[in-house]
Amino acid sequence: MNDLIARRERALGPGMRLFYEQPFEPVDARGVWVTDVDGKRYLDAYNNVPHVGHAHPAVVMAVQARMASVNTNTRYLDRHVLDYAEALKATMPAKLDTVMLTCSGTEANDLAWRLACAHTGGSGAIATSYAYHGNSTMVSALDVVSTPSGKNEGWVETVDAPLDRSAGDANAETSSAIFDSDMAAAIETLIANKRPPAAFYFDPLFASDGVRLPARGAMDAALARLRKQGGLVVADEVQPGFGRLGETMWGFEALGVVPDIVTMGKATGNGFPLGVVVTRREIVQSFRNKGRYFNTFGGSPAASAAGAAVLEVLKSESLPENARMVGADLKAALIGLRRRHRLITDVRGVGFFLGIELADIRGGEKVPATAEARRAINLLWELGVLVGLTGPGSNVLKVRPPMVFSKDDAAILLERLDQAMGRI
Amino acid sequence: MNDLIARRERALGPGMRLFYEQPFEPVDARGVWVTDVDGKRYLDAYNNVPHVGHAHPAVVMAVQARMASVNTNTRYLDRHVLDYAEALKATMPAKLDTVMLTCSGTEANDLAWRLACAHTGGSGAIATSYAYHGNSTMVSALDVVSTPSGKNEGWVETVDAPLDRSAGDANAETSSAIFDSDMAAAIETLIANKRPPAAFYFDPLFASDGVRLPARGAMDAALARLRKQGGLVVADEVQPGFGRLGETMWGFEALGVVPDIVTMGKATGNGFPLGVVVTRREIVQSFRNKGRYFNTFGGSPAASAAGAAVLEVLKSESLPENARMVGADLKAALIGLRRRHRLITDVRGVGFFLGIELADIRGGEKVPATAEARRAINLLWELGVLVGLTGPGSNVLKVRPPMVFSKDDAAILLERLDQAMGRI
Repeated sequence: MNDLIARRERALGPGMRLFYEQPFEPVDARGVWVTDVDGKRYLDAYNNVPHVGHAHPAVVMAVQARMASVNTNTRYLDRHVLDYAEALKATMPAKLDTVMLTCSGTEANDLAWRLACAHTGGSGAIATSYAYHGNSTMVSALDVVSTPSGKNEGWVETVDAPLDRSAGDANAETSSAIFDSDMAAAIETLIANKRPPAAFYFDPLFASDGVRLPARGAMDAALARLRKQGGLVVADEVQPGFGRLGETMWGFEALGVVPDIVTMGKATGNGFPLGVVVTRREIVQSFRNKGRYFNTFGGSPAASAAGAAVLEVLKSESLPENARMVGADLKAALIGLRRRHRLITDVRGVGFFLGIELADIRGGEKVPATAEARRAINLLWELGVLVGLTGPGSNVLKVRPPMVFSKDDAAILLERLDQAMGRI
Repeated sequence: MNDLIARRERALGPGMRLFYEQPFEPVDARGVWVTDVDGKRYLDAYNNVPHVGHAHPAVVMAVQARMASVNTNTRYLDRHVLDYAEALKATMPAKLDTVMLTCSGTEANDLAWRLACAHTGGSGAIATSYAYHGNSTMVSALDVVSTPSGKNEGWVETVDAPLDRSAGDANAETSSAIFDSDMAAAIETLIANKRPPAAFYFDPLFASDGVRLPARGAMDAALARLRKQGGLVVADEVQPGFGRLGETMWGFEALGVVPDIVTMGKATGNGFPLGVVVTRREIVQSFRNKGRYFNTFGGSPAASAAGAAVLEVLKSESLPENARMVGADLKAALIGLRRRHRLITDVRGVGFFLGIELADIRGGEKVPATAEARRAINLLWELGVLVGLTGPGSNVLKVRPPMVFSKDDAAILLERLDQAMGRI
């Protein structure tokens, strides 16, 4: 495997991160189980691209059937793209009536920007402080942490993510006032820079801001203010969407927000590259009035079939309900683990998107336990469990399994997390 | 099928172009033959996404095998991405030693921009007058025809595509002098705008500029000038690459140019969404020094397997050689057709990328026969042949078939083109 690492460095270039300290070469997977090259099995409590489970046969067969037949583009008529778009619309508020298909969440967020600029005439963007929405030139500029300051030329402003609903003083009213005041300042700066707001992007579970689920209504005042200034609301459902939060199909529903544009990626095609924008017809009309747009692979029969299969499996296997039930029990058990491990200072999130915060409490302040968190995911890997990291301090264990994660799988995760934390 | 058109308008929104005047619903395809919903068969002389032929079993099986196994991302070790990257590098000049994988040609051209800016410190772009390089916010700005003027804020300048090698006065020397002078003016403007050039993008066959293959060496002076000013050369191989031009694997080779960055899309995965950037290690290093980059689907095992299968089939079925031979005979025969149809005023291109220009000669000037060209592709469709349109005047028939297009297929195309032109 060291040979593979050297080949990787030569062929793919310098600076490519690997997930684990030790080489890890998965060679097979099914459901929530991944097998590496030595035959060792891992419980996958992290990967969200295989949303309905690794190698789900319904998706594999759907893609294969289209690729073995005709797999062209949306300039020809094809039933698969329409079946998919209609099925997806049926899960959305009625206003969000128009579907555009891309190859990735990045492309979806980038297209959302072109739509927002065309419809509003604005050219300023607002995102949360630790936002990550993708890797294109435009979308990566929203990530002000990674983009050197000054590069954004005054057209991107940030706001702190609203407080998690579990935070001590975070009732809807307090949380709302803080967030609204931040939004007002961001809008003011953009207008002063002659870049009036076109769009505010947010991940409804604020994953890269450390996993936060604000109280219902906590964003209302700020979003009303934004809209009054002409800006659109873009909900990035790449992580929370497709039933992951359990109680709702979409993250924005958990917040009581109806966005102007919804974007999707990662989970959308269970590994087949597919991103989606859903928005209002009038917004698409404004965009089409300004010029041509075509996406070669977006909405191909194979991509559409993959997307449709994901929606069907979510329904036929009642996976959002599974996320709700197993996720609730898992969260309760994780909160219980706090009694045994003082490093666990918070457990946030809902359904199958949980964040376990590791920190030292010093003088009443939480100091992110970044090194310990990294050690925890490497120990868990040794114990045969895949978990990720997130948050500004990289100190939040990210539990975000495929949606077929069962009660028994949750028990294994808990037992091994307890072991790993005991060794730190 | 009218039902499908209405559903399409409702679900995918207003302003979605359809390729033909009449509804066309393909339901099956193999090789160069496409079957529509009524069972009528069409010879495909247009689609380049199914590069090695529609539904090629080698690609279908390669994708299916990976999707039915483990299909994760480049943060885990996987042999498929390395096998593919190494095979692709082997087709390139030695300097171009580092491969980055994306989901589309758009993402590849967008990443090329981030690489070029990071490496050069520049922030100005140069493209050809009718360039099309993709649909992201950044990449679509290179398309100054579709982007309302003023939107580019002084950071994109254009140059006319170099003359085709067949043009009367287009020996390498004349062509080179004109192109170099245009490039000098573009660079000067960018520097005056305080947006020094980071990159010049070009399609080596200048497809959307109307299909031009400049004389070898015709770009040398201009590219040397650009590099002296710090700019990088980006060859967009989305259309001419992967042996389509017959004599060379890559379009830039036909021009005697070695680019700093090569981008690929469309043909790359034979319909599986896959884009590629190949560049020099030092350029990737500059980029990695400035921040993180990760592409969720780019370089997944399934995408890599699709890409590798395309390279293998190109070799095992000697498809570039097929494009060279069949393309040369086809071009000669198309030139012969000019004697029978006065509307055909030029035949350009090489291998399996040919442009048939339709124009009226009035007072010694060529006036694009735009309406006739549109009528020609619709008549050809009625006659069971798929052909496209390109060029600033949309008056160039684009013959760009899957690489398995045979001598017999070429004879069918010729006969039906002759018939169609006879009716115009």
